[in-house]
Amino acid sequence: MNLIEIKDLYENKENFIDKEIEVGGWVRSIRDSKTFGFIVLNDGTCFKPLQVVYSDKLDNFSEVSKTNIGAALIVKGKLVATPNAKQPFEIQADEVYVEGESTPDYPLQKKRHSFEYLRTISHLRPRTNTFQAVFRVRSLCAYAIHKFFQEQGFVYVHTPLITGSDCEGAGEMFQVTTMDLNNVPKTEEGKVDYTEDFFGKPTNLTVSGQLNGETYAMAFKKIYTFGPTFRAENSNTTRHAAEFWMIEPEIAFADLADDMELAEAMIKYVIKYVLENAPEEMNFFNNFVDKGLLDRLNHVINSEFGRVTYTEAIKLLEEHNDKFEYKVSWGVDLQTEHERYLTEQIFKRPVFVTDYPKEIKAFYMKLNKDGKTVAAMDCLVPGIGEIIGGSQREENYEVLTKRMEELGLNEKDYQFYLDLRKYGTARHAGFGLGFERMIMYLTGMGNIRDVIPFPRTVNNCEL
Amino acid sequence: MNLIEIKDLYENKENFIDKEIEVGGWVRSIRDSKTFGFIVLNDGTCFKPLQVVYSDKLDNFSEVSKTNIGAALIVKGKLVATPNAKQPFEIQADEVYVEGESTPDYPLQKKRHSFEYLRTISHLRPRTNTFQAVFRVRSLCAYAIHKFFQEQGFVYVHTPLITGSDCEGAGEMFQVTTMDLNNVPKTEEGKVDYTEDFFGKPTNLTVSGQLNGETYAMAFKKIYTFGPTFRAENSNTTRHAAEFWMIEPEIAFADLADDMELAEAMIKYVIKYVLENAPEEMNFFNNFVDKGLLDRLNHVINSEFGRVTYTEAIKLLEEHNDKFEYKVSWGVDLQTEHERYLTEQIFKRPVFVTDYPKEIKAFYMKLNKDGKTVAAMDCLVPGIGEIIGGSQREENYEVLTKRMEELGLNEKDYQFYLDLRKYGTARHAGFGLGFERMIMYLTGMGNIRDVIPFPRTVNNCEL
Repeated sequence: MNLIEIKDLYENKENFIDKEIEVGGWVRSIRDSKTFGFIVLNDGTCFKPLQVVYSDKLDNFSEVSKTNIGAALIVKGKLVATPNAKQPFEIQADEVYVEGESTPDYPLQKKRHSFEYLRTISHLRPRTNTFQAVFRVRSLCAYAIHKFFQEQGFVYVHTPLITGSDCEGAGEMFQVTTMDLNNVPKTEEGKVDYTEDFFGKPTNLTVSGQLNGETYAMAFKKIYTFGPTFRAENSNTTRHAAEFWMIEPEIAFADLADDMELAEAMIKYVIKYVLENAPEEMNFFNNFVDKGLLDRLNHVINSEFGRVTYTEAIKLLEEHNDKFEYKVSWGVDLQTEHERYLTEQIFKRPVFVTDYPKEIKAFYMKLNKDGKTVAAMDCLVPGIGEIIGGSQREENYEVLTKRMEELGLNEKDYQFYLDLRKYGTARHAGFGLGFERMIMYLTGMGNIRDVIPFPRTVNNCEL
Repeated sequence: MNLIEIKDLYENKENFIDKEIEVGGWVRSIRDSKTFGFIVLNDGTCFKPLQVVYSDKLDNFSEVSKTNIGAALIVKGKLVATPNAKQPFEIQADEVYVEGESTPDYPLQKKRHSFEYLRTISHLRPRTNTFQAVFRVRSLCAYAIHKFFQEQGFVYVHTPLITGSDCEGAGEMFQVTTMDLNNVPKTEEGKVDYTEDFFGKPTNLTVSGQLNGETYAMAFKKIYTFGPTFRAENSNTTRHAAEFWMIEPEIAFADLADDMELAEAMIKYVIKYVLENAPEEMNFFNNFVDKGLLDRLNHVINSEFGRVTYTEAIKLLEEHNDKFEYKVSWGVDLQTEHERYLTEQIFKRPVFVTDYPKEIKAFYMKLNKDGKTVAAMDCLVPGIGEIIGGSQREENYEVLTKRMEELGLNEKDYQFYLDLRKYGTARHAGFGLGFERMIMYLTGMGNIRDVIPFPRTVNNCEL
C-alpha cells in the first residue's frame, strides 16, 4: 500500500503541498456539521496528527460522519497549506475509505484518562498521546544506547537469560522448569529430582549479565550487554518491576576513572539524542508531565559531572543530618534522600560518589589500598538519585578469592570467573544502567509500570 | 588508561607511524631467541593483531620472554612501518608491562582446537580467531537490524518475556515460578495452587512477541521487536536452542506484498552492513569455515528475490519428487530438502513462497479469497532454506473468531487480540527472523551452539 506518512508531511511539507496524497491512520477526534466535518487523524509515525476536512461531496459522507473515535481510515485528497490555522496544513478529502470501524464505547474517549485506568488496557494505551510519547522515547533511547556503544567499537553481547548460577545472590530469583508442578519428580531422599528437569539442574532467570559480560570484555576489550533481567522481589513500589531491561558495559585495560568517563559520556549522548529526535514528545512531557524536565536535562548535558568520594560525601551530608529521616554516618548505605540532597542541593549537578566501604558493596569490586573501601561508583542525578552503579573489578586472583572466602562464596561456582584472573587478567571496570530508570528520568513519568509496554509486577502478568 | 587501540592503528596508520604509542592486549603467540623476541598481540578491538618486537634492552627481558600465551601486556614503543613484511607495521617495544600473567597450561594453545572442545570453555572461546569473528559479526548484525528499522522510523518494542498466555501454542514452554518445588502449594482439590505463585497464576517464558507486537503496530504503524524467546523442545539438533533471539517487525496499513518487500530489504541491508563492517572476519569465514560464503552472500545482495505461490511451488517440486526423501504433494508442509531445492536449483536465488494451505499455518493468518489458503510467506535462501516466516494477519473480526472456533481456541484468552479487530482494525502484516539463524547464514557456522555466547540446550546450562 502506497500511503504517505504523516511524519513525512511535516518533515518535507514542500514536497506535498497542493498535491494529491493518500494517508492512513486512526481517528483521534471527529466533529461534523450537516455538510462538512473535521477529523484529527494520527498514523503513529509522528506525534502530531493530520487534520482532515471532508464534505458532503463524498459519496459516503454519512458513513464517514458516523465514524467513531479509534476507527482506521484511508484518506485521499489534496494537502493544502493553512497559514492562519494552528496546524500548518490540512488534507481536503476527495475519498475516505473506512478501513476498520470502531464503536461508540471505544475505551479511549477524547478526555483525560488516568494512568491507572490505562494500565488496565495496556494493548490500547499506546494510542494515547502520553503513551505514544513514552514508547517512542523508549525506542529512541534504546537505539541511542546501541549507537553510542557501536560507534565506539563496543561489541554487543547477548548474555544468557536462563542461568544455573546466582551472580552475587542479588534479589530473589524466578525458577525456570519444565517439570510437572502437580507431580514434581523426587529423589529417593524426597528432594526435588532436578535430573528430570530440562537442564538437569536447578535454573533461574538472570538478575545480571555482568559476570558473563566480563568474560567477553577479556576477549574484546569493550563490550556491552542490553537485555532483560528479572527480580522476584515481593515489592509493590513505583520503581520496581519483576522484568526490566538493563545495560551493562564492561571495559578492559580500564580503571574506575575510565568507567566514570564512559558513564558520563553515555548519559549525555542519550539525552542529546532523544532531545534531538523527539522534540515534540519531550515538549509534551515538559508541559503535561513534569514541568522542569527540559531544564533539568539540558543542565545535565551541559554540566561536568562532579566526583566525590563516599568518605567526603558523608562529611558533607553529616552537616545536614537534621534534614534527613535516616541520619548518615560513615559506613551506612546512602538512601535516596541523601543521594538527591547531594546532587540537587550540594553539587547542583550530576555527581559520582566513589570508593564505598567494602561491606556495603559486592564481592567482585576492587579493594582499594586502604583495605576498607572498594573502587565502586554510583552516578547520582538531580530528580532521581542513583541512575548508574558501577565499579572497577577485582582483577587480582588472591585478593578476590580471599574476599569470596570472607563472604562464604563457593569458589567452585565461580571457576569461570576466577579463570579470568588466572589467564591474562587485566584491570577492568563496568557499570549497570537500569533501562526503565533511564526512561523515567527522560520522560518524568513517575511509575515504572508506565514506561514498560506490558509490565510484570507481583500478581500482575496480563497480556 | 590512555592506550591506543589496534583497530585505530590499522585505520589511521599515518597518524602513528614513527610515533611512540602505548597498547594493551593479550598474547596470541610468542617466540624468542637469546637477545630478542616477537609477540603477536591481540586487543580485541580488531581481527588483526599487532606484532611486538622486543629485545634484551628491556629491563625485564627475561620476564617477558617467559610470558605464556594468554597473558595481558601493556607495551610502550615506536610503531614502525615494515613494507617488506606480511603485516604493515610493528611496534618496537621500549617497555613491556606484564599486566596479567598466564600459565603454561592455558586452555587455548597455538593450535587448532575443535569447536566441541571450545564449547566446554565458553568463557574463553571468544579469545580465538573463529569466535572473535563470530561474536563481532553477531554484534554488528544486531546493530544493523536496529539501524535498518530505526532509519525507517520503526518503533522498537520490548514485548514481555514472562507471559501468562501461550501464543498459538507453539512448542513446549518453560514455566516460571517462585513456588517452593520441594513443597508445591496445593488447593483443597489437590491441584497446584497458583494463587500462591508470584503472579497469582501459571506463567511461562514467551515463545513469540508477535501478538503483543501487533497491539503496538496498531498504534505506531511500524514496529519491531528484538528480544529473547524460548522453546523447551527436547530436541538435540544443530539448529535448535532453548533460548534464542528473535526479530519480529509488524506493519499496519500493509499487506503481504509490503511484508515481503520489507523482509527483502532488511536481509540485503544486514548482509551489506556486515560485509562492509567486518571484511576481515568475513574473509576468515570464507577461507576457513565455508568456502562459498562470500559468493553466496554477494549473490543474495544482487538478486531480486523470487516470488512463487505454494501451489505453483508444489507443481515445480513434484517434477523432481524422485530426488526427495519426502515426496511433495499439495497440502504437505515443505521440508528443508524441498526448500533448498527450490531456492538453490530452481530459482537459483532467494525466493518467497506464499499462500500456504491454511491447515499448515497459524490461526491468525489472513484467509485468502479461495477459502483454502492463507496470506503467509516463507523466505527461502540458498544454503539454508527458510530464514524468515511471516504473514498478513486476519484483520476481520468475524473471520478470525470463526477460525479460532474451528481450532478450539478460547476467545477469552485472546480478548486483547480481538479488540484490535474491533477498534480500528487495519490490514497488517509481519514476520519473524530467528537471529541465530541469520548469524549462521552470515558466517557459515553450522551449529547454533557456536553462534550463541552461552548456549542453552537440553541438559546444558553452563555459566
